[in-house]
Amino acid sequence: MNVLIVHAHPEPQSFTSALRDLAAETLQGQGHQVLVSDLYAMKFNPVASAEDFSERANPDYLVYALEQREGVKAGRIAADIQTELDKLLWADLVIFNFPLYWFSVPAMLKGWIDRVLVSGVCYGGKRFYDQGGLAGKKALVTLTLGGRDHMFGEGAIHGPLEDMLRPLLRGTLAYVGMEVLPPFVAWHVPYISYEARQDFLRSYQARLQGLEQDVALEFPRLEQFDERLYPLQRPAQ
Amino acid sequence: MNVLIVHAHPEPQSFTSALRDLAAETLQGQGHQVLVSDLYAMKFNPVASAEDFSERANPDYLVYALEQREGVKAGRIAADIQTELDKLLWADLVIFNFPLYWFSVPAMLKGWIDRVLVSGVCYGGKRFYDQGGLAGKKALVTLTLGGRDHMFGEGAIHGPLEDMLRPLLRGTLAYVGMEVLPPFVAWHVPYISYEARQDFLRSYQARLQGLEQDVALEFPRLEQFDERLYPLQRPAQ
Repeated sequence: MNVLIVHAHPEPQSFTSALRDLAAETLQGQGHQVLVSDLYAMKFNPVASAEDFSERANPDYLVYALEQREGVKAGRIAADIQTELDKLLWADLVIFNFPLYWFSVPAMLKGWIDRVLVSGVCYGGKRFYDQGGLAGKKALVTLTLGGRDHMFGEGAIHGPLEDMLRPLLRGTLAYVGMEVLPPFVAWHVPYISYEARQDFLRSYQARLQGLEQDVALEFPRLEQFDERLYPLQRPAQ
Repeated sequence: MNVLIVHAHPEPQSFTSALRDLAAETLQGQGHQVLVSDLYAMKFNPVASAEDFSERANPDYLVYALEQREGVKAGRIAADIQTELDKLLWADLVIFNFPLYWFSVPAMLKGWIDRVLVSGVCYGGKRFYDQGGLAGKKALVTLTLGGRDHMFGEGAIHGPLEDMLRPLLRGTLAYVGMEVLPPFVAWHVPYISYEARQDFLRSYQARLQGLEQDVALEFPRLEQFDERLYPLQRPAQ
């Protein structure tokens, strides 16, 4: 497998970085090719803007997705985006490795999503969900957070973590057609002992070694909807 | 009322910008004070990093929220963050005005959230949800998107829009204690006629003029949970 790890954490010595390194080593040890995009180290630019295109289909009015679609065809998309897009297209598995900020990805990683998941390649028209442009690839979300396990789930104070992650898991990764594996979550990280961190590293390693057996999450398929994307009615019983 | 509009769109002539201007004029016309943070025009820096602190509580290892908490007390938080935080604390109503990118806020706005919702002021310890540091303020999310109305809702292809917005509405705005009003949504914006846009502007203006009557969304309250944040059991009937 070709594996891309997209990593975003402002502290190079963080536990999140240890998860990144462990994933790279473990997967390389299994004979996979691994690339890492360390967005903070790269000083990646997270801001989608007119400057992302050397020439514009419409220089007077920016519709970002339209310029992506035209720009990627014409080879006039910013070099940093094209580089990341090439890595993404090369990858069979993409691991998103980050600390949860506001129940979501850090802005740095959101900017990678905004800029690199280019319209016309990753999605467009009726190419989304199971028909998305990245169908056939797997996605794994690996995150660290401050909260405890019992604060999430049905009836818990924040509700199910998967519900908070919905725009990422469903609205982004499943939307572009990726097979989305259940997230790997390290809880309460800033407050736990060295031993508890080692436990997370061991269980992450085991998870990575058995990734082939993982069952992907379920999301909508376009065949369940009509041409105008209304849900198909099931015949009454 | 003091009103802060946080606006993030890469095209100054966009319909989203028209919504911003309409909100500013309408609310000023009612005698309210209005400030606008136009993040693209300000070239706002969305990246949370060690550079946000002139001195660090722990110079060897960055825990961002901890440095926020210590930095804001000691007056050593970056000037651009302090300026935005001052506007936020001044405001009675904050309007978040943006195009939906990947069922979420653009990275530019996510960075404002990551950096400006400072730990120790906006939340911290048991100060969240109804006990959050921004209790007493109202939040309105005003967004534009490409999708159509019928693609959202129970059974629709993307499910309810509020579910996609959960990390923003609940995990961010309700979390810091704000009273979260139902979002104002302009659908299918890149594809609609001038007249359809005028309709959205008229209905937005009416909504803003009647904002006092808006009923806020419901979210958890800390009194429903015990000291360790486990849900309190209801007595069996």
